[in-house]
Amino acid sequence: MQSYQEMSREELLKEKSALEAAYRKHAKSGLKLDMSRGKPSAEQLDLSMGMMDVLNSDTDLSCEDGTDCRNYGVLDGIQEAKVLLGDMIECHPDNIIIYGNTSLNIMYDTVSRSMTHGVMGNTPWCKLDKVKFLCPVPGYDRHFTITEYFGIEMINVPMLSTGPDMDLVEELVSKDEAIKGIWCVPKYSNPQGITYSDETVRRFARLKPAAKDFRIYWDNAYGVHHLYDIDQDNLVEIMAECKRAGNPDMVYKFCSTSKISFPGSGVAAIAASANNLVEIREQMRVATIGHDKVNQLRHVRFFKDIYGMTEHMRKHAEILRPKFEMIIDTFERELKGREAGTWIAPKGGYFIAFEALEGCAKAIVARAKKAGVTMTPAGAPYPYGKDPKDTTIRIAPTYPTLDDLKIATDIFVICVKLVSIEKILEGKSAS
Amino acid sequence: MQSYQEMSREELLKEKSALEAAYRKHAKSGLKLDMSRGKPSAEQLDLSMGMMDVLNSDTDLSCEDGTDCRNYGVLDGIQEAKVLLGDMIECHPDNIIIYGNTSLNIMYDTVSRSMTHGVMGNTPWCKLDKVKFLCPVPGYDRHFTITEYFGIEMINVPMLSTGPDMDLVEELVSKDEAIKGIWCVPKYSNPQGITYSDETVRRFARLKPAAKDFRIYWDNAYGVHHLYDIDQDNLVEIMAECKRAGNPDMVYKFCSTSKISFPGSGVAAIAASANNLVEIREQMRVATIGHDKVNQLRHVRFFKDIYGMTEHMRKHAEILRPKFEMIIDTFERELKGREAGTWIAPKGGYFIAFEALEGCAKAIVARAKKAGVTMTPAGAPYPYGKDPKDTTIRIAPTYPTLDDLKIATDIFVICVKLVSIEKILEGKSAS
Repeated sequence: MQSYQEMSREELLKEKSALEAAYRKHAKSGLKLDMSRGKPSAEQLDLSMGMMDVLNSDTDLSCEDGTDCRNYGVLDGIQEAKVLLGDMIECHPDNIIIYGNTSLNIMYDTVSRSMTHGVMGNTPWCKLDKVKFLCPVPGYDRHFTITEYFGIEMINVPMLSTGPDMDLVEELVSKDEAIKGIWCVPKYSNPQGITYSDETVRRFARLKPAAKDFRIYWDNAYGVHHLYDIDQDNLVEIMAECKRAGNPDMVYKFCSTSKISFPGSGVAAIAASANNLVEIREQMRVATIGHDKVNQLRHVRFFKDIYGMTEHMRKHAEILRPKFEMIIDTFERELKGREAGTWIAPKGGYFIAFEALEGCAKAIVARAKKAGVTMTPAGAPYPYGKDPKDTTIRIAPTYPTLDDLKIATDIFVICVKLVSIEKILEGKSAS
Repeated sequence: MQSYQEMSREELLKEKSALEAAYRKHAKSGLKLDMSRGKPSAEQLDLSMGMMDVLNSDTDLSCEDGTDCRNYGVLDGIQEAKVLLGDMIECHPDNIIIYGNTSLNIMYDTVSRSMTHGVMGNTPWCKLDKVKFLCPVPGYDRHFTITEYFGIEMINVPMLSTGPDMDLVEELVSKDEAIKGIWCVPKYSNPQGITYSDETVRRFARLKPAAKDFRIYWDNAYGVHHLYDIDQDNLVEIMAECKRAGNPDMVYKFCSTSKISFPGSGVAAIAASANNLVEIREQMRVATIGHDKVNQLRHVRFFKDIYGMTEHMRKHAEILRPKFEMIIDTFERELKGREAGTWIAPKGGYFIAFEALEGCAKAIVARAKKAGVTMTPAGAPYPYGKDPKDTTIRIAPTYPTLDDLKIATDIFVICVKLVSIEKILEGKSAS
């Protein structure tokens, strides 16, 4: 297949005209497809409906230690939930605090507490002139929204195929005391599906930050969200690695069951060193009477243990795998030879990132929208919504049915081709 | 019955000796009774076990508007939950945002947001030299813990039988711009069981605070927690009253179902003016992906409507009423004629406040503890845990069984008598 760059003006115009016809046909059919957010499909949600049956009016709602989950008490989570989530993120239960229904809220709370009370005895960030965070890009828009809300300056760090550019991270962190944190989605990253390499994690653990209160915000959102049973990415466990490197307090690890059971009705947790947890519990004692223990118990009784959860995730994978593979196959078939963009085939997670030709992402998303396909807004995976080269498009394949997704992917590919050809034609007439 | 004050030294010593014998008998029996926290009893929790049955794997978990409660979406609560909690606190559903499981966390969040982002365009409190809150005393210890955590100076305002001393509130609020809020439990107050009078609420609504960002923190924790069906206290609805007084934005109203369904697994909400809600939603959009909609739905399907909730609260009252009445009867019988303290017989809520003779509260609580009866620590109902006259003891009658509570009350009364006699004897020997 010939690349668009190599095609003549006439060849491009001819291709363009055929694509426009195909586009018009789709646009007329009144489609409404959504590839914008990482939401599980109804079919996936059905996998967890058994959770509604594990507790009923005859059930003893007591923990193994006798605690009545219906009443007040237990600030930081029931022990069996700590064990389950600990196994999920490879941490000791003693290092875990169970929160409410969303890990995003734990991250918000963590930044908010650092603003008003500081981190382990250091100056509260609201008393400092400047606070900065490093943001590997492309990344997760909701992370960036938190730091933006608190007026924290965000610095882009490019993602490589091995994770964030560690040369840059090491340099920035070691010389600027205003840099207090970095947002990471280390496994099956949002949106590229990249897993940080062993070397990357080891270099993270060995950082020598100028700021004593620098913390790695390690959002392990897709830790068990594999697409394959054997062909899985492996991530070096960061807390143990930080301990080995003499930096035991440098990381907060976040997780939840949002995309395992029900989004919004799951269980979230933070893992951190004993020192960090002391500080977190001090805040919790003030901020809450404790989180929903009945829901914690419901999760434990449903999954039973990490083996149960693994089997459950296998069922999710069976639904998701064909969707991811269909998109990657379509890209390989339709776009690879054309050199109209690049992508990575992820082995897990919830997204595929499409890297369009420079200056094309916004136009592709806008054109897809007009044909009834909603994508995540271009720019969203960057701080302040500004993609400096206008190239990244986040694709969320999970929510639509496979049939709908096929149509949406076809339309997306047509839009990519059209916008790429127009860009190349512009270049050709300019030169 | 003769008052202790009027008794001679000899009479007092004789009474003391009899009481000491009774105390020793109890102390030897190895009791362990808890009247320290406002926890529902197991019998009360059983009332809500049907909630575990309303959703099962065959249930359609969709809202009336078609929203799938299992998935992401809906930031501020499902409509039917807003209607139910709106009816519960006499507010329009449009003025309500549903949160997670605890209203305490909403209050914490509200103070925290005011610290970092200010209130409706005013300077963030963390940028001010001084922030102060008014604290009607005795009050709820967890309120005071929040303001203490954020370094907010707390000023005591005495509770009268009609609510906080409004002369003092009006004076302080109108002249000091650093006063940004007041903590209120306006109905069946914690710990006295006082309901603010109509005049008190009207004067609240008509306050002319020096601080534009002054807010009334109206914790309507016991709004539907009546002990009687007809003989109920009535509270003027503050939001409507503030609107009528030209101060629509001056109040945040908090509530939850914690002591209606299950503590820790209930649904909490804030009600406020449209202007306030705009600001709250801005924060929520950053801080969370939304709260647990499945649990909201579970509550709505269980209670159905406010009539269902009223009938449910009637069952709670049937369990609680004998406990409250037994304590009040015992006090009337044993303590009234002795003039060894005062109390109010509440018509609802979760507590009875016992006002001991000056300088006696700590000693009474300590002595009860030694005999196996745990009370809320003396001082807890005051900011910084400091009861200036050492008089207030909070009694939480709900958790123990009626039989246990009878024993605990007997022991408590013995301790009150003993400590009072000792105090009076001290006085007599000093004079």
